[in-house]
Amino acid sequence: MPNPMNGAEALIRTLAGSGVDVCFTNPGTSEMHFVAALDQVPQMRAILGLFEGVVTGAADGYARMTGRPAATLLHLGPGLGNGLANLHNARRAHSPMVNIVGDHATYHKQYDAPLESDIDAIASAVSGWYRRSMSPTTVAADAAAAVAASLSPPGRVATLVLPADTCWLPAPNGPAPADTPLPTQPVDQADIDTVANLLRSGEQCTILLGGRALSAEGTLAAARIAESAGANLLCETFPARQQRGGGLPDISRVIYLAEFAQMQFEGTRHLILVDAAEPVSFFAYPDKASVLTPDGCEVHTLAAGPHDPETVLEALASALGANDPASPQPTTRPDRPIGALDLNSFAAAIGATLPDGAIVVDEANTSGISIPAATVGGPRHDWLCLTGGAIGIGLPMAVGAAVACPDRRVLSVEADGSAMYTMQSLWTMARENLDITVVIANNGRYAVLDMELDRVGASAGGSTARDMFDLKRPPLDFVSMASGMGVEAVRVDTADDLTAQLDRCNSEPGPRLIEAIVPALGS
Amino acid sequence: MPNPMNGAEALIRTLAGSGVDVCFTNPGTSEMHFVAALDQVPQMRAILGLFEGVVTGAADGYARMTGRPAATLLHLGPGLGNGLANLHNARRAHSPMVNIVGDHATYHKQYDAPLESDIDAIASAVSGWYRRSMSPTTVAADAAAAVAASLSPPGRVATLVLPADTCWLPAPNGPAPADTPLPTQPVDQADIDTVANLLRSGEQCTILLGGRALSAEGTLAAARIAESAGANLLCETFPARQQRGGGLPDISRVIYLAEFAQMQFEGTRHLILVDAAEPVSFFAYPDKASVLTPDGCEVHTLAAGPHDPETVLEALASALGANDPASPQPTTRPDRPIGALDLNSFAAAIGATLPDGAIVVDEANTSGISIPAATVGGPRHDWLCLTGGAIGIGLPMAVGAAVACPDRRVLSVEADGSAMYTMQSLWTMARENLDITVVIANNGRYAVLDMELDRVGASAGGSTARDMFDLKRPPLDFVSMASGMGVEAVRVDTADDLTAQLDRCNSEPGPRLIEAIVPALGS
Repeated sequence: MPNPMNGAEALIRTLAGSGVDVCFTNPGTSEMHFVAALDQVPQMRAILGLFEGVVTGAADGYARMTGRPAATLLHLGPGLGNGLANLHNARRAHSPMVNIVGDHATYHKQYDAPLESDIDAIASAVSGWYRRSMSPTTVAADAAAAVAASLSPPGRVATLVLPADTCWLPAPNGPAPADTPLPTQPVDQADIDTVANLLRSGEQCTILLGGRALSAEGTLAAARIAESAGANLLCETFPARQQRGGGLPDISRVIYLAEFAQMQFEGTRHLILVDAAEPVSFFAYPDKASVLTPDGCEVHTLAAGPHDPETVLEALASALGANDPASPQPTTRPDRPIGALDLNSFAAAIGATLPDGAIVVDEANTSGISIPAATVGGPRHDWLCLTGGAIGIGLPMAVGAAVACPDRRVLSVEADGSAMYTMQSLWTMARENLDITVVIANNGRYAVLDMELDRVGASAGGSTARDMFDLKRPPLDFVSMASGMGVEAVRVDTADDLTAQLDRCNSEPGPRLIEAIVPALGS
Repeated sequence: MPNPMNGAEALIRTLAGSGVDVCFTNPGTSEMHFVAALDQVPQMRAILGLFEGVVTGAADGYARMTGRPAATLLHLGPGLGNGLANLHNARRAHSPMVNIVGDHATYHKQYDAPLESDIDAIASAVSGWYRRSMSPTTVAADAAAAVAASLSPPGRVATLVLPADTCWLPAPNGPAPADTPLPTQPVDQADIDTVANLLRSGEQCTILLGGRALSAEGTLAAARIAESAGANLLCETFPARQQRGGGLPDISRVIYLAEFAQMQFEGTRHLILVDAAEPVSFFAYPDKASVLTPDGCEVHTLAAGPHDPETVLEALASALGANDPASPQPTTRPDRPIGALDLNSFAAAIGATLPDGAIVVDEANTSGISIPAATVGGPRHDWLCLTGGAIGIGLPMAVGAAVACPDRRVLSVEADGSAMYTMQSLWTMARENLDITVVIANNGRYAVLDMELDRVGASAGGSTARDMFDLKRPPLDFVSMASGMGVEAVRVDTADDLTAQLDRCNSEPGPRLIEAIVPALGS
């Protein structure tokens, strides 16, 4: 008679049965029964990362592109800690995710062994749902609950702590059936009518889109509304996922620099939020405002977390009779640039070569300033941003997006400084032979901090301070680093070469890295 | 009239005046005033790391070698999160450390800007002292209190959260004077006499040394006691810092594998703890004990956190009349090995070339199994271990140790898997031109997990599970990665070449990396 299923197998079978069939892993000893059980459940694809920030960022990218959670497998408190920054970004993106954090056996925790730490405190800080699974008789139901919680709108990080004995003891109940996420909640017609009346009032209205409103359908409906009512239309500064390209509306993002963002809201009497937060400055600065809307501006939340923003926007369009299609962004691309590589030709090279259906992962920071305009009329693509300000998500998110969408090319445009946080991602790209083009914008500086040092009003910028932003001593050689992790790479310093290399990436499967030597913004 | 000093400058001046004159940094916008103020306080040496795990691990290495805290500069909750794993190790090492975690301005927190997170929960989980500095009138005193707390025995991680406006507003009080750490507490003579009587009783006693008892003085006193009384003498499995070499006692470490560790304690009637925790299994395993001492063994804590273990050991030696020097470990080295590189010749190469006064940072894991025996009779050296089980501290700790002791060579012996967590350390080694020899033991596997999968009794080890430990698809090329971060590197696959390259490293200043291709343990 075969051994009865253990807790680990019941857990993994439950995840797979609930539609979670990818697990990004960085396991340790306390996770060995989980790892062993992977061989019993071939439906689960396990993808190894060499650092937990890769694992959690990949799960975020996967979730943004599929709308479904991936699992992660992390090793006690320190493993969770290493993944924390990208869990913060995922929390801000409302990405569904199911973290499995291995822990000491229940009876072993009391001994304060070296890896013991306050997992509960750390996990709770980044998780919208959190549970410790104390027994193999409950672990399957706990897993089903975690998946359902992660999928309940608008999506959240769910973390299940898994003591080692919960894994290794027999689980006579076996796997649990999938649990049902909470449904989306409807918005009252009266509330929709109220907003429709505001839009008809003649007072200046700004519609701010965020989160799930930035799908093709959401932006098309919002553009119809805005054109019909003469309202301003903006979207949040760092969308989790925006569908863009020729034929879709060109929606301006709220500008990162607060002083310019304030101008975007100037004169706004009514701000209508559609799955977006009230706009505030990313950081505070001496003698500058935190809130970006003008005094007296009234804020109306049309759709938020529990709602379905697309449905709400369609209902609002109907209430307004806004049935005519909005003027679409014309389909156009920049010419193929030649000559020196500056931030405009850098962006033009990307815009000129962007393949149809690309997924752009944007962590180019200051070096990417011209890319949105250079791609807005290009072929349809998805655009994924750094939602939580914790740099180091770009390369991991590209891994997850490529796993989610094996038929699409992922373009990971990455700043040199940010790339260094989670470079280990390159190895997973090579191991899984993912169709990812990594473009590193190497300007040799934390250029954003040069700008920020000036902006915060810091009365200095002496040589010691500026030296903290200098990445040229020694220079970072991304071609060598990529080669060391099995990713073919090349360095370019002209727009012609960048364009040619992008073409080459688009025509060959698997990952490749292009290190583009660019000037720092404003230099 | 010059501008009055701001909070940031008052803070940095207080740190420097309290003896904290090194700050490992990875700053962001909320830390710009701190960074700007560095130019006003040239006594503070700022050392940039490209990832926060480098920063916190370096501060740990610095503290272990100087007994003093370095400061770290971290960017809000995500920056703290990236540094969390090595803070966990530092907490376990009782390393004094002062983390400065920048945060949003006090009035800006309410707006839940993208980088807002529960710093209090995350920081409290790894800090022995924690405070949020709410005003520039208190920040200097807060900093002085943080330093004193970090230095209060046995040493702890102190974390000061620094809102941006606390930094940028004027600090009319200026810097604060240094605060006084708590003194060590004496151990009652009666308690010392009790232990002396146990040692004279004829019942089997084991003395377990840890923490600060592992200095040359502490181990010499303990060896005198053990020899005089016929007691067993052991030290904890992963010491924060152990002074070793010819002329010092050879003290066996408690073996990592619980089943062997239990044998070391077999027959022990009295366990005497000197700055060590009661020994427990690193992990739990099905049907294996968590506690390593035999049933009926009585545990006596002779010296713990508040005490000075060296003084207590000297007092115990006096009480016993144990005045004769213990038999020292003879001064001896292995012969220079030749031929194939296996784990014995790997260790012999290190033992044969270890320079006088070296600082060995040991994160070689399974590949390092033979190195302790190969170095025990070598020139005097310090040995730093992974105290908290969170891999990825070796390279950062080497940075900190080299900054702490510029006249000594640091030998960082590092496993391939662990190295990948915090490879960014290499760049800081190059930037600061630190005298570090990095030896990567590249066996192409998470070999410890092969062993652990067998040990936990996991009934499998199928191809999917074993694939999670495979670092050869693609192979990691550490020579390329090191070159990419400005560190000269070479690959060796014979014992002769390893020995020759170690000689070369010892004769040249600055960092160098040697990638040694070794077989996996047991393969």
